[in-house]
Amino acid sequence: MSALSDLSNLIVVLVRPRNPLNIGAAARAMSNFGISRLRLVNPYRMAFREARSAVGASAILEKAEEFNTVADAVGDCSLVVGTTAVRDRDLKNPVQQLGEESAGSIRNHLQTERAALLFGSEKIGLTNQDFTYCHWLLTIPTREMNISMNLGQAVAVCLYELARQAEPLREPEKGSPAKVGELEQITTGLYEALKVSGYVKPGNDLVSEKKVRRLMLRLGFQEMDAKVFLGMVRQIVWKLRQSDKN
Amino acid sequence: MSALSDLSNLIVVLVRPRNPLNIGAAARAMSNFGISRLRLVNPYRMAFREARSAVGASAILEKAEEFNTVADAVGDCSLVVGTTAVRDRDLKNPVQQLGEESAGSIRNHLQTERAALLFGSEKIGLTNQDFTYCHWLLTIPTREMNISMNLGQAVAVCLYELARQAEPLREPEKGSPAKVGELEQITTGLYEALKVSGYVKPGNDLVSEKKVRRLMLRLGFQEMDAKVFLGMVRQIVWKLRQSDKN
Repeated sequence: MSALSDLSNLIVVLVRPRNPLNIGAAARAMSNFGISRLRLVNPYRMAFREARSAVGASAILEKAEEFNTVADAVGDCSLVVGTTAVRDRDLKNPVQQLGEESAGSIRNHLQTERAALLFGSEKIGLTNQDFTYCHWLLTIPTREMNISMNLGQAVAVCLYELARQAEPLREPEKGSPAKVGELEQITTGLYEALKVSGYVKPGNDLVSEKKVRRLMLRLGFQEMDAKVFLGMVRQIVWKLRQSDKN
Repeated sequence: MSALSDLSNLIVVLVRPRNPLNIGAAARAMSNFGISRLRLVNPYRMAFREARSAVGASAILEKAEEFNTVADAVGDCSLVVGTTAVRDRDLKNPVQQLGEESAGSIRNHLQTERAALLFGSEKIGLTNQDFTYCHWLLTIPTREMNISMNLGQAVAVCLYELARQAEPLREPEKGSPAKVGELEQITTGLYEALKVSGYVKPGNDLVSEKKVRRLMLRLGFQEMDAKVFLGMVRQIVWKLRQSDKN
């Protein structure tokens, strides 16, 4: 159903993560969107151990590599993009919002080259020092009031945007619309039911057959639904007539 | 810097959530993307209590409303979108991938009307019963190998896509669509008529109440039309009952 972009050249780098749940969540999102290479720079040791030993810890975590410096972790990449929630700090790097354009430019790079996407620690994010290794910075458009996202959620949102195919999506399959003749049968039946039930009173055409017809047209019946509904209406009319006779 | 879409008419509904961290994460993502209304259907009680009492628990959690049924939680909404990872189950509802087009259609609705976005429990997601209250389903494009996302991350990804500004929005359709609560009244009445008239036979649920509900959702009733049609159905039911007594 969903053809995802090939992100096999992407490396996710968590810089100084402290919470094992966040490390696990990052790995899970990577698995969801088809990214397998995870690197950690100076993770809080207990957190990394705990994340690795968690039930259901993935192959991604088992194969995750540890580095002492950002420089080492991104050494084999030709594009390094840092993520940041910060907007007013005096940033030296160019900043792009996460979106089609920024994702597209990373995807273009990934077609032939490795790229690293960096996420900072839960408390302070990436530092100015970390930024010096980044070609540019990526920021997720969030509300000014609460700009800072949870680490695992930020990873998920970035990878979703990178993975999703940009081309237009197809409309959900729609059946064929009902023919007007079919709607007319419904209208006739329903109007009959309204007369027998007393909704339409003799001499009072407040609810005319025309109004019922227009209502049925507005409902935009699909052909199959119209057939089913016509069957319902006919059965109700039959029962009303039966009862009326007695 | 980032002009987010106005999502104040959006209601996030967590159905049977069990993990306090996920409830908290959902609330945090809502705060990041400017959505304030959270509803919970039958949350695991301890989880909800724990999430609410967590350090930094937001105003969103404090104001979160609890409901016993999906029907009650979405009763005042005129568009209900369920999220699902399931792709091969025999889904009765139309399914759209999360993306610009599906998000755009929800945003259009939100310009004038309330919409609910439903997320199921961590283990099993939304059930077929829950789906009967949904106009359509939304699926996040993930890898076939690992389609199921963490709840908090799924909420974040969906809200990101809804909030980010994309193409200029089209004019909203004229007239307000019917609330699901109104459609539910029609469903109940019509099903009663089908039983009394013998269309639905005892012990034979070929036509279940669920099917009637789905049919009514598909018809895309406008609010005024729904009111008129409900009046018709009620009159017919009244007459059928009267006749049945004699």
